[in-house]
Amino acid sequence: MQLGMVGLGRMGANIVRRIVRDGHTAVGCDRRTENIDELTSELGDSFDGTADLADFVGRLETPRVVWVMIPAGATGAVIDQLGELLESGDIVIDGGNSRYHEDIHRAERLSPKGIHYVDIGTSGGVFGLERGFCLMIGGESGPVEHLDPLLKSIAPGVGAAERTPGRDGEPSTAEQGYLHCGPAGAGHFVKMVHNGIEYGAMAAYAEGLNILHKANFGAEHAGEFSAEETPLEHPEFYRYDLDIPEVTEVWRRGSVVASWLLDLTAGALYADPNLDSFDGRVSDSGEGRWTLDAAIDVGVPAPILAAALFQRFSSRGDSLYADKMLSAMREAFGGHHELPKK
Amino acid sequence: MQLGMVGLGRMGANIVRRIVRDGHTAVGCDRRTENIDELTSELGDSFDGTADLADFVGRLETPRVVWVMIPAGATGAVIDQLGELLESGDIVIDGGNSRYHEDIHRAERLSPKGIHYVDIGTSGGVFGLERGFCLMIGGESGPVEHLDPLLKSIAPGVGAAERTPGRDGEPSTAEQGYLHCGPAGAGHFVKMVHNGIEYGAMAAYAEGLNILHKANFGAEHAGEFSAEETPLEHPEFYRYDLDIPEVTEVWRRGSVVASWLLDLTAGALYADPNLDSFDGRVSDSGEGRWTLDAAIDVGVPAPILAAALFQRFSSRGDSLYADKMLSAMREAFGGHHELPKK
Amino acid sequence: MQLGMVGLGRMGANIVRRIVRDGHTAVGCDRRTENIDELTSELGDSFDGTADLADFVGRLETPRVVWVMIPAGATGAVIDQLGELLESGDIVIDGGNSRYHEDIHRAERLSPKGIHYVDIGTSGGVFGLERGFCLMIGGESGPVEHLDPLLKSIAPGVGAAERTPGRDGEPSTAEQGYLHCGPAGAGHFVKMVHNGIEYGAMAAYAEGLNILHKANFGAEHAGEFSAEETPLEHPEFYRYDLDIPEVTEVWRRGSVVASWLLDLTAGALYADPNLDSFDGRVSDSGEGRWTLDAAIDVGVPAPILAAALFQRFSSRGDSLYADKMLSAMREAFGGHHELPKK
Amino acid sequence: MQLGMVGLGRMGANIVRRIVRDGHTAVGCDRRTENIDELTSELGDSFDGTADLADFVGRLETPRVVWVMIPAGATGAVIDQLGELLESGDIVIDGGNSRYHEDIHRAERLSPKGIHYVDIGTSGGVFGLERGFCLMIGGESGPVEHLDPLLKSIAPGVGAAERTPGRDGEPSTAEQGYLHCGPAGAGHFVKMVHNGIEYGAMAAYAEGLNILHKANFGAEHAGEFSAEETPLEHPEFYRYDLDIPEVTEVWRRGSVVASWLLDLTAGALYADPNLDSFDGRVSDSGEGRWTLDAAIDVGVPAPILAAALFQRFSSRGDSLYADKMLSAMREAFGGHHELPKK
Repeated sequence: MQLGMVGLGRMGANIVRRIVRDGHTAVGCDRRTENIDELTSELGDSFDGTADLADFVGRLETPRVVWVMIPAGATGAVIDQLGELLESGDIVIDGGNSRYHEDIHRAERLSPKGIHYVDIGTSGGVFGLERGFCLMIGGESGPVEHLDPLLKSIAPGVGAAERTPGRDGEPSTAEQGYLHCGPAGAGHFVKMVHNGIEYGAMAAYAEGLNILHKANFGAEHAGEFSAEETPLEHPEFYRYDLDIPEVTEVWRRGSVVASWLLDLTAGALYADPNLDSFDGRVSDSGEGRWTLDAAIDVGVPAPILAAALFQRFSSRGDSLYADKMLSAMREAFGGHHELPKK
Repeated sequence: MQLGMVGLGRMGANIVRRIVRDGHTAVGCDRRTENIDELTSELGDSFDGTADLADFVGRLETPRVVWVMIPAGATGAVIDQLGELLESGDIVIDGGNSRYHEDIHRAERLSPKGIHYVDIGTSGGVFGLERGFCLMIGGESGPVEHLDPLLKSIAPGVGAAERTPGRDGEPSTAEQGYLHCGPAGAGHFVKMVHNGIEYGAMAAYAEGLNILHKANFGAEHAGEFSAEETPLEHPEFYRYDLDIPEVTEVWRRGSVVASWLLDLTAGALYADPNLDSFDGRVSDSGEGRWTLDAAIDVGVPAPILAAALFQRFSSRGDSLYADKMLSAMREAFGGHHELPKK
Repeated sequence: MQLGMVGLGRMGANIVRRIVRDGHTAVGCDRRTENIDELTSELGDSFDGTADLADFVGRLETPRVVWVMIPAGATGAVIDQLGELLESGDIVIDGGNSRYHEDIHRAERLSPKGIHYVDIGTSGGVFGLERGFCLMIGGESGPVEHLDPLLKSIAPGVGAAERTPGRDGEPSTAEQGYLHCGPAGAGHFVKMVHNGIEYGAMAAYAEGLNILHKANFGAEHAGEFSAEETPLEHPEFYRYDLDIPEVTEVWRRGSVVASWLLDLTAGALYADPNLDSFDGRVSDSGEGRWTLDAAIDVGVPAPILAAALFQRFSSRGDSLYADKMLSAMREAFGGHHELPKK
Repeated sequence: MQLGMVGLGRMGANIVRRIVRDGHTAVGCDRRTENIDELTSELGDSFDGTADLADFVGRLETPRVVWVMIPAGATGAVIDQLGELLESGDIVIDGGNSRYHEDIHRAERLSPKGIHYVDIGTSGGVFGLERGFCLMIGGESGPVEHLDPLLKSIAPGVGAAERTPGRDGEPSTAEQGYLHCGPAGAGHFVKMVHNGIEYGAMAAYAEGLNILHKANFGAEHAGEFSAEETPLEHPEFYRYDLDIPEVTEVWRRGSVVASWLLDLTAGALYADPNLDSFDGRVSDSGEGRWTLDAAIDVGVPAPILAAALFQRFSSRGDSLYADKMLSAMREAFGGHHELPKK
């Protein structure tokens, strides 16, 4: 089966590689011709590429399957262009990180022309080529079924994890790593919440490791507390100089917190044990905010995600004004002075 | 009635001033003789002072009433000394910020000697002299009743606030600003939770004002978002350049958030509209932590206090390691880079 | 000066009463004719009313001043109607709880006709008649200045609180209880954040009082812990049977947490000491959610507000599915069983 | 090598099974003789058991290795008894869930007798027999090294996960699933924080899945909002009827949130898709509280853990008083009524 891919960055190129490995073919479109050249030399006859969108559409077999895999900010314009170039029966896929609201609007706009819109939330990051991509899909059933051979090749496959106890027989697509979640937007909605969970899980590890990081506080600060600090009542309980890279490594096997995120964390700590290469200014790419917006809209408590997101805001200095306000209040009612910088 | 006061710092001296105003007399004890001299010249015959604790005890009428008003770290030793010097029937008061656990232990230790121990959580800060002190009291009923004339003079009095609808007749002591809360430790326990609430209320104001502070974000950052930033979907909704000192002032009259903390905040912002005199390193003096410990022990959710306390920790740099860990994870799974410093 | 008021419910009627007291006149519009009749009999010649909007507009002197004070859900339609009925130079005010986004849109729609739109966030609740209303105002400067005589009468006035130290001379409008915050929407924006702070402050009190409420846990549960409960390590620290109505009363005078919310809380607890008339299903009317949305948009940490809002969601049962999920996980990895219902 | 095991419940018995599989022998001690009989018939000559502690000690080769694996509440007394029965050079291990404070005290008490105390935080739950146990170890280096052959057999082994990139050569013990973390208490300290992370990660999944659970809110509640509810501004964005068991299944392969906890969650949802067998009353067994206590002591923000713990408290009804307080305040200042029960 043939896949058209707009955007041959790391994610797009790796999806192309995975389907070609499985015997499919691909046509690529990217303004950066070096991306096209690289895949052409690597994949031979199974790949064809062009920098021009109209040319690209012209090279595709009908019904065309066009997967758009470019930064979320640029996706809307490309899909509008494709709306002009594609024909009834064609399928356009947004595999990027669009907000699911957009999917709903786009599907509505393309529907009168008979063009099918499918949104695919794609997880897997830089490891997708070898590990496969986890695919969360929204759209009409017919087009999604039509894509099945491609989705199967892109997804990790049932062997990527042990089967869940009780499941037997023919594996469901979810067991193979791809799932048709619902109508337009459902794929990006599920991916969005996935990322929200990711924020929370990341923060859980970071917070716990921060406690371990300060477990030697009693040895380091015995008796040196100013009037504006709370003295440590039991310094003898905080005299552990822990090897945090090794702690993350030991948790990878047999513990309840074993996870892929932990695998990566152990790897990062092995490479840079004191995290010296980082400043701690953590950005957020939108999905966490949108998940929180959704929780607020439907009235579901989301304290974990909120805390994780706010920590990122705070890491970028956006608590400063509030902190100053607290200092101002403390001085006002109690004559308290701020702690000096460490 | 006579009060013995150990510690003539701002709080101790102001309590002495309030009782002398009401016709009582005081004997003070402070190693800083200038503190004694100041009160002596100010209060004349109503005040007598000495730097020596035994001498101080000797000058008191029996049954003695000794109020200890010194930093929490030094209180235990002084109360132990007083335990040696005082006699059966005497009353010793800790009016400082001891953890209530200590009260329970001290009352047990002093009880065999017939010395009564009373803990008084004292709120009012630097404004207590004019405003009166709010007194939360723990201890046996007899001794607390014996102190009533003094407590009445130290507390603000019923006129300090409008009476609660429905309350009439002789005002309860709570309406006058002092309350016998329960046995030893109850005073400091209630004061501790009072401070926990204070942390939360302070943080509520600081957080809201921080949102107002950034309400012009859409005007200031139109269209300048990097790939690692979430673009502002509706910059037109964040184009308010607000005068925050005036906003806090307007809320002081008629609004639901009017409070004494807000009065102080408005004052601080009038004096320093951009808070330039603060660095935002907010200390905590223990009560917030102890309140959270109590909430954990008895299984009561305390998300507001926890958030308020953690913000203070974070303001002092103690999120940094966790933040770096998040950056390390993001780089590991997604190849994301940190945001540059502003 | 004349004010037209659409909506003579409690808030609208009390605003009319306050301006009439100060010598102004009012024309009211309400479908509930009993509301009109009540004000007519109470205010005599100073008030005129009608159930018909066009008739109402016809009775107003030009330039007309029309204050709309009806539920947020109905406001948009009425303002659209007024947009048809009013003329260039007239002023329409939304004094209700609209989201400030609406203000921006409405001002844009009315501007071509020369109709001025002013949004006024109004705080004061059921006490506004006697206490005055705190007014946060958005709109163009000219029209807002035109309204000054009315705003001055509606607001509490400078005497409602002591002047902030350092402020002297002619009081600013903020000191009188009303403030022109900025262009269209600024009034509701500031009111929205005000309510966000209110959520946080309310939750701070509720949480602290909940800890006090459980301060006798050690006496009540000595030694009766099942294998699935964490035993209380120090029951001797939790043996306080506190009188919570009296505690809230004592805090009203001289303490750092004294506030109008605390006054109301003390009143509620005096009337219903065990809160038996409440089920604890706490609703939220939107402003808290919108404030959190704003914090997310501009990247400001809002952990206090988030916690306060999520507690309300949770109070309505919306944590249940998540709680069940936790129980399912605990059973899966550890064979743990749920606690039985109390 | 020989291991003495006190407590042959699921965890203790499975540890015995794992070492016997590897060629070691074991002596067991359990008052429940059926537990001894079961292991005797299963393990033959490699296992010997008795219900009497002194008899058990007598059967062990010196230097004795005694692993205590019983409920935390009973551990202290047994270790005191062993302190009387063991001799200089023997090793006693607490493999249960004691608070690490206890380890420090016990090590100090046993040290004068020459008895070595080792604490081993043991993760693995009901799956440890097949999966191996993750072991976090505290104590002196000599005794911990002496235990190496046993620890290697109990731990999962390096093959249980892919090696972290960059690690090669002889695997560290951490890579095999056991780690000597530091002096007495270090093992339980690391295990405690591990459980704190576990609480946070569990809550992240539960919260995200709760949002998915309510993703159809717009379809289910179109237009039926009371005056005390916030209407859903965009019901069209919440019309997803998601198959949550399948969603958790698809995330298991290739996604960033893949983890062992997710595997278990998918299994639980496959077995009980609507979680009908749970009431949502979630208990906590202490480690989460202790981790939060530690974070407070050393001044590290722990918002994720706090939120996770408070949700559990709340699931058991301990927010109710605070919720009622909020309702009381809302009625007091705004005349708001509570929402009726659903």
